[in-house]
Order: sequence, then structure tokens, then C-alpha cells
Amino acid sequence: MIKYTYKQLYRFCNDAFEKFGFSREEAEQISDVLLLADLYGIRSHGTQRLVRYHKTIEKGSVRVDAKPEVVFETPVSAVIDGHSGMGQLISIFAMKLAIKKARESGMAFVSVRNSNHFGIAGYYTKMACDEGMIGICTTNSESIAVHTGSRQALLGSNPIAFAMPAEPYPFWFDAATTVVPKGKLEVYNKAGKELGEGWAVWIDGKECTNAEHVLECIDGKVGSGGILPVGGSREESGSHKGYGFSMICEIFSAITSGGDTSNHHVRVKGQGAGTCHSFIVIDPKIFGDAEAIKEHLSVFLQELRDAKRADENIPIYTHGEKECISMQKKMEDGIEVDVSTAAEMINICNYLGMDSIEYLGDVDVSGAKEGTYGKYYK
Amino acid sequence: MIKYTYKQLYRFCNDAFEKFGFSREEAEQISDVLLLADLYGIRSHGTQRLVRYHKTIEKGSVRVDAKPEVVFETPVSAVIDGHSGMGQLISIFAMKLAIKKARESGMAFVSVRNSNHFGIAGYYTKMACDEGMIGICTTNSESIAVHTGSRQALLGSNPIAFAMPAEPYPFWFDAATTVVPKGKLEVYNKAGKELGEGWAVWIDGKECTNAEHVLECIDGKVGSGGILPVGGSREESGSHKGYGFSMICEIFSAITSGGDTSNHHVRVKGQGAGTCHSFIVIDPKIFGDAEAIKEHLSVFLQELRDAKRADENIPIYTHGEKECISMQKKMEDGIEVDVSTAAEMINICNYLGMDSIEYLGDVDVSGAKEGTYGKYYK
Repeated sequence: MIKYTYKQLYRFCNDAFEKFGFSREEAEQISDVLLLADLYGIRSHGTQRLVRYHKTIEKGSVRVDAKPEVVFETPVSAVIDGHSGMGQLISIFAMKLAIKKARESGMAFVSVRNSNHFGIAGYYTKMACDEGMIGICTTNSESIAVHTGSRQALLGSNPIAFAMPAEPYPFWFDAATTVVPKGKLEVYNKAGKELGEGWAVWIDGKECTNAEHVLECIDGKVGSGGILPVGGSREESGSHKGYGFSMICEIFSAITSGGDTSNHHVRVKGQGAGTCHSFIVIDPKIFGDAEAIKEHLSVFLQELRDAKRADENIPIYTHGEKECISMQKKMEDGIEVDVSTAAEMINICNYLGMDSIEYLGDVDVSGAKEGTYGKYYK
Repeated sequence: MIKYTYKQLYRFCNDAFEKFGFSREEAEQISDVLLLADLYGIRSHGTQRLVRYHKTIEKGSVRVDAKPEVVFETPVSAVIDGHSGMGQLISIFAMKLAIKKARESGMAFVSVRNSNHFGIAGYYTKMACDEGMIGICTTNSESIAVHTGSRQALLGSNPIAFAMPAEPYPFWFDAATTVVPKGKLEVYNKAGKELGEGWAVWIDGKECTNAEHVLECIDGKVGSGGILPVGGSREESGSHKGYGFSMICEIFSAITSGGDTSNHHVRVKGQGAGTCHSFIVIDPKIFGDAEAIKEHLSVFLQELRDAKRADENIPIYTHGEKECISMQKKMEDGIEVDVSTAAEMINICNYLGMDSIEYLGDVDVSGAKEGTYGKYYK
């Protein structure tokens, strides 16, 4: 692990995205989304993902000069066409619009089509929460999830994020509607660990605990096999529940926007992924005294934290608490980046003609994994 | 099993609720909610539950003469105080108001406090769906669910229901955010079956597969033990996800309405349960052409049904499909009621001075289980 200060990573990301062709303001927006993930301890969506954004920009799936366009609008709603731009920029634009409309009308629903991967959904709900509002965000994604009774993956990982102001921590929930994200399968595969029961199915539609086999199904686009919705494969353990929550994501994101459901997302050079999102904002003032409502939630969250513990030594958390603690710690102590990610960042420096030693220090990345990204290495 | 026509049960329920003190219109509303559950095959929430409603009316927890009151209102919202009336009546009133506001403003959010058990959440989303709208409904309940890291049950079963028009079946989702409802534990207990792993914890906070032991925790109000949120007890299997969805129910239902979170619900004679609900309606017109949106969803649902099956012999369903098929069948063939429920209905007839043979036929209920309801038996 290599430790960087927030400031160091922010400067590097900003300059890199500017060199990719974004304006300074756009680069700052993208960097902010990426680094919140690292600060919150959601490493899968932080700088670790830079290389994937680089690739999609290079392939032309992300159009650097695209601007989001409002194609339909009412006082409480908007439908936005992202024109295959950078997901983070489209989404910040969409959430700002939703906040503005909610401030005027009390609540608002903005949906987006033709976007790309937008980072953590919870970034956008935090935007609403920081303005004293309830924020809800969903997205669909490449199809990796197998619905109840199927062996074909037609649904995305489909996270739902929800945030609402409270003290001392806001309620901040952000979770895929699958049992586990694809990233966890990759971690288990590397470690040679067996997957948990009810996490995934193989090409034959039967439950499978071999991470490598399941990843082959997903990455090979073999048409069968994938990750299960939260609740597993059987209705008895609630499979249809995760399937239902995932459907709400598809409806909110793709159906309302007239965009592509996850089973129609593409990975073709020069073409956007077709990702769809939704951004819903509710002003607590539409229910009365916003301060009293915030206090009511704060009391309830404290009651949950104060409940009798299953294990005396393991504290009970409310959603978003760990993330707030993590952020404070990392702003003070720095952000740890694994060697492979550091190598990828150096690589991006080399590609973009940035002095990697000036940006990222003279670090030893000899332990970095060999990636598909090797061609830019010195 | 004893078979009744829908008409027979509807007449019986209507007359019974009228004799309990409700107006004809109110009785019809309550009967309609109850019988939709039976028609949809959700037996736990149909006539099987009549005896529990009778008890709560008798104990004064449900106030027969209470009228829902709008205590705060904006063009897109309302907060309703149910004054401990019958949950179904308060909820139909609330959903009608939400539909009216959504028709005028595009979307609306009505939350309710001081209500009682309202039957199936999906009844109310169906009301919106029948009007061409997206309907969302949540409720909290008596606290039976143990959140991640806790051994104390502070959350309710907390269902989320969602409906949206589509052909040939609407998308109609209604599920508790716990792995299983309490009713399933009762069924397993009667059958002497082991619970599934990750379904429940005992008083010591450890996972427990003995239904009787878990039910003792819940019904005995011993302060520990209960059902787990969907995703089980460990974060690894997604426990925090079910916990998060359950929290959304508490926030939508109790926090926005200024009502009681599930851990503050009471069971005191003469006092309402304090149940809270939310009703959200979105007019698809705020996203453009409502017919095109409906068609888009219909196509996607068909793609899900047409996916490659895990087992060739088991069809893939979309949410609400089984319920529509069940309703059609039961309207034609009749509704099956178990002997114990039939005995309870006869009992209600006797209590209310209704001729049970005229209403329910001369049926043999000698196999009925002995209940807590024996005192009204002839």
C-alpha cells in the first residue's frame, strides 16, 4: 500500500482529466466523485477505477465533449439525454436540477438515459443531503444479475442510494441490489476463496461457489450465469425481493427515461454504454418542520446504535456512519492506494506526458499486477 | 379447505364490518382490501386475519369512529393523522389524496401516523396503478426484525410495495424487507420444520433455526431475538442491505409523518398501535408519453419472462403475474379457506348475531385448531 494525501490525489486526478480533454471545472467534478469513494473506504469506485475510465474515454465510449441535454421537463421532473458523456458530469448536472426543482416544487424526479458509469450513487444523494434534502439515486449497469428462475443475466448490479440529514451522521445508504458486487467475485477469485452460498449461478443455472467460473460467464458474455440478487436464488430466502428492488432501479432509471434496460447495454467501441440513472429529491419541509424531522431521525438512529449487541465487542452501525469516520481519518492520515493502482496512475502520467514523480512521488511499484494496461508502461 | 365464492365472502365481510360499527362504504373498503389478498393468494393477509382485526376493534386499539385528518399539506404532499382508526380506511383515504395531488402536480407523497395494520401494502399501489400511475407504499409495524450487529428487534417487517402499469400484467411488487414474514415462522413451527440459515436470531444474538424459540422471543417481547432483514445476519451476505431497505420504510412512514418508529409501537388495550405508512404516486406523464413508457416496461417484462430458464420446467415470473393469474382463477373457481379460518368466521357470525349457515353454509369445522378465540364459540 502506498499512502497519498487527499490533496496529492486531487491534483493528480484534476490534471489528468483536464489532459483527457475535460474543462477544469469538469475535471474537478469527476475527481470529487472518484475521491469521495476513496475517502469513504469504497475502494472499488475510487482511483482504482481510473484505468477503466481512461479506457472508455480512449475507446470513445465516453464522449469528452458531450453535454447533457434536457429533452423533457415539468416543474417536478426532467428527462436528460447524456449523449454518452462522462457519467459523473451528467449526474451532477441532473442532481443539481433535481435539487433546484425540489426546492421550488417540494419534490422532483430527474431521469437520465445514454450515460456511462457514474461512480458511487451515494455521491449524488450526498449532494441533496448537504442541502438539507432527502436524496435518492438509482442506476442500471452492464447486465450481471440473474433474476429468479432464470440462468441468464439480464439485470445490472443496480444500486439504490438514499441519504437524509441527521446528527451526528446523516443516514447514507448505498448498496447494489445483488448479494455482492462483481468486484467481490474478483477479490475472491484472486484469493482462491469459495464464494458464499446463494451468491451466484453458473452457466447451467445452478448455484456455483467457484468465483473463476462465474467471472468467466460474466466477462465472456456467454449468455448464462451471473450474480444473484440479494436474497439468493430461491424465493424461500427472498430471491424475488432482490429481483424486485433491482426492477425498481430499472424502472426508475431506464423506463422513465426511455433509455436502455441493462440487458440492452452495449460494449462497442465508439458507442456509449447506454447507462441510465434516476435522481429523486424530497424537501423535508413538505412534511412540516424540517428541523424537527431531522431530530426525529437522529434520535431513531441513536436508538439503533444503542441496541443490545449480538457481540459485545462489535459496535452497531447506522448507514453512513463508517463512511463519515473513514473520511475524517483519511483526510488526516492520507488515502492508501494499492501498488497496482499506483502503477496504473504512473502509467496514466506517462501516457499524458505528466511527470509521475512530481505528482505521485518516486514509489516502488514492482509488485504491481500485470494488467491489460501494459502497453503504456515505460 | 372450504371453498367460498368471492361474492359469499364479500357479503359476509361487508355485513360483519358493518356490524362492528363501520358505515356501509367503510365496510366495503375494508372487505375489498382483505379479499384482494385472498384473491392474490396472499392468504396470511386475507380472511385469515379477520380474527385479529376483530380483536383489535374489541380491545379499542382500532377506533371504529375515527376519521383520518390532514394535519399538514402542500400541493405535492400531506401528513395525515389516522387517530387510531382502521388502517385500511386511513390508507385508502391517503392513497386517494396522493393520486389526486399527483394528477395535479405530477407526483405526490402522503405520509400517515397513528394508524393500524392496513392489510397488503400492494392494495394501495394497485389503486395508483389502476389509474395509470406509478404507486409506491411502505409501512412500519410491530418490531420483529434484528438489524445488523444487534440482537434486539427494533425494526418492523417493513414491506415495500411498488406498482406500475404494463401489459399483459402490471409490475406489482410487494415484499417485506425481512428474509421471511413472521407468518412463515408460524407455519414452520406448526410443521416442526427447521428454519433456513440466515433467517432469524435467538435471544443470545446468534443465528437460530428453531422457529419455536424465535417466536418465543418475538411474542414474549423478551427484548432480544427476531427475524433478520433480507440478506441475513452478516454484511457478507448483504445483511446491511435489507437493514437499509427497512430503514427507508421507517423514514418514509414514521420520520416524514412525525409518527412512531417500529421500536415505539405499543400493544396496550385501548391504544392504537401507532403504525405509520407512506403513499407515493408518480404520474408517468411527467416523463413524456405515458403510453410509450408503459410499452417500454411491457417489452422489458416480456424479455425477463422469456429468459433462459434455470430449470426448463419452472417458468420465470415477473412480479404481479402470479397474483393476476391467481385472481382470475379464484374469481371463477372460488376462494379456499382453511378450516380454522372458517371456524373463526362462524364464530364472528355468532358474536355479531349473524346467521352463519346463511352466510357461510353448513360446513364441518371440527378440524379447526383451538385458538385464543374460543370464548365466542357456541
